[in-house]
Amino acid sequence: MIRFEPVDPDFATRIRDSFARQGAMGHLGARMTRVEPGEVELELAYRPELTQQHGFFHGGVTGAIADTAGGYAAFTLIPADATMLTVEYKINLIAPADGEKLIATGRVLKPGRTLTICEMEVAAVKGGASTVCARGMQTLIRLEGRPDRPAG
Amino acid sequence: MIRFEPVDPDFATRIRDSFARQGAMGHLGARMTRVEPGEVELELAYRPELTQQHGFFHGGVTGAIADTAGGYAAFTLIPADATMLTVEYKINLIAPADGEKLIATGRVLKPGRTLTICEMEVAAVKGGASTVCARGMQTLIRLEGRPDRPAG
Amino acid sequence: MIRFEPVDPDFATRIRDSFARQGAMGHLGARMTRVEPGEVELELAYRPELTQQHGFFHGGVTGAIADTAGGYAAFTLIPADATMLTVEYKINLIAPADGEKLIATGRVLKPGRTLTICEMEVAAVKGGASTVCARGMQTLIRLEGRPDRPAG
Amino acid sequence: MIRFEPVDPDFATRIRDSFARQGAMGHLGARMTRVEPGEVELELAYRPELTQQHGFFHGGVTGAIADTAGGYAAFTLIPADATMLTVEYKINLIAPADGEKLIATGRVLKPGRTLTICEMEVAAVKGGASTVCARGMQTLIRLEGRPDRPAG
Repeated sequence: MIRFEPVDPDFATRIRDSFARQGAMGHLGARMTRVEPGEVELELAYRPELTQQHGFFHGGVTGAIADTAGGYAAFTLIPADATMLTVEYKINLIAPADGEKLIATGRVLKPGRTLTICEMEVAAVKGGASTVCARGMQTLIRLEGRPDRPAG
Repeated sequence: MIRFEPVDPDFATRIRDSFARQGAMGHLGARMTRVEPGEVELELAYRPELTQQHGFFHGGVTGAIADTAGGYAAFTLIPADATMLTVEYKINLIAPADGEKLIATGRVLKPGRTLTICEMEVAAVKGGASTVCARGMQTLIRLEGRPDRPAG
Repeated sequence: MIRFEPVDPDFATRIRDSFARQGAMGHLGARMTRVEPGEVELELAYRPELTQQHGFFHGGVTGAIADTAGGYAAFTLIPADATMLTVEYKINLIAPADGEKLIATGRVLKPGRTLTICEMEVAAVKGGASTVCARGMQTLIRLEGRPDRPAG
Repeated sequence: MIRFEPVDPDFATRIRDSFARQGAMGHLGARMTRVEPGEVELELAYRPELTQQHGFFHGGVTGAIADTAGGYAAFTLIPADATMLTVEYKINLIAPADGEKLIATGRVLKPGRTLTICEMEVAAVKGGASTVCARGMQTLIRLEGRPDRPAG
């Protein structure tokens, strides 16, 4: 396990603030449950508003929280005056996303001055048992001198 | 341009019915605006509930409608007693998803008895101008003898 | 079809020179058969040295020429004092790569100052008939002030 | 770490035999250095015949051995009368592949009756130090009743 050293000591505050401004995460009902250097975890409780046609979590919703968990994992390692954008992500849906909640974990595989690579895992928790339902990879780009929250 | 021949003449009805049962698409506000053999189009009007922290459409939302458009494009070509699941999708976010609405188009590249491959394009429409903001690819698997809507 | 305008009028010469310095492409036996703004085509004749265990072209070889075709497609649009590196590529092997030769085409989907996105298609030609055997996407990064061929 | 149980006790022999029939791996010079249930390792010594234009290992070559390592990792877990084909793979080239050799490791993330998902890592070894230069994911499909080596 690689240990990452954040350059902004207040990274967790900055990230929770940014996450709170994501209308889409609020609308889905995702909560940020863990923020560590290079790793972020989100939880999403089951609701019929999050399903595909067979009643499981929608694959696009699973992908959305995976993308977000990976993006903020990368975000933990950048300076305070920078922001991160997703370049691309790829997700394999490896089991039905069937459960009371999803837990999405994003981890930095390789931080970089310009590009950062993350991996993501999403688990479905049902009756106390956790099953990995998705695995993914993501490429992000750092924008310098562009604080995530504009002054105002 | 490849012309595909649907095996189920009622494919459009079956697909619109399946889409209507996707709680997640209803919650996001996506509408199915076109259903043709091998091609499906969705539209998603802008709302603050769909944004990332800078006010654009969230990349995870863009990915979710791309996944859905591709999935239903594949769905147009299968028998009435089968269903389709996404195996994996990959999406490149190539421009800010900035506009009054997104239009996601899914197209079958290669239909198959077991696996089908699709490509997806998402455009952001702003003041009448359309800009491609995402491109993707997707692999789906057909489940035979498993109608999308269970009898009941 | 997008028309791209190259910034370096001598792009084709620069690209053929770079390709000729790729030991791996020479070892596989790939030839560069077309170089246009935003589009490059490679051909690879069948040899037992290029096969997987069932005698078809190896998927890794198919991926390698797709990566190269996409990379040089991106290369056609950059200044003479820059170079291009592949960030990531994804390839779907959609039919057996069975034929006398493969033709790999790389096309720029979205050129950018930093990142460029390409799509790739590989066709297997057998007895005069061409079958698409792979489709892919690729992300590349431009390195400025780093000519592809070092002075010397 | 998941422990996998092979269904064919002779899986290692079967895999080494299949690998030996891959003309492409012989032509590149790859060796199979480890075969365990759900995990396979390949090594590839540096040669000018494997390079891109700057003298590093070619990204397509890196991808080819990653694809092969992942494919055979999946192969360790299937019955003797089945074979495995790559459906798709995605690889991020995260550092220059600069070294005396590459070590590619493929690991099964999720084995399945039809589809298996693997992850791949490629490290470049230079002067005794190992640097991860690529990470990837792969989807494979199992073909039943189709032994990898035809009788005859």
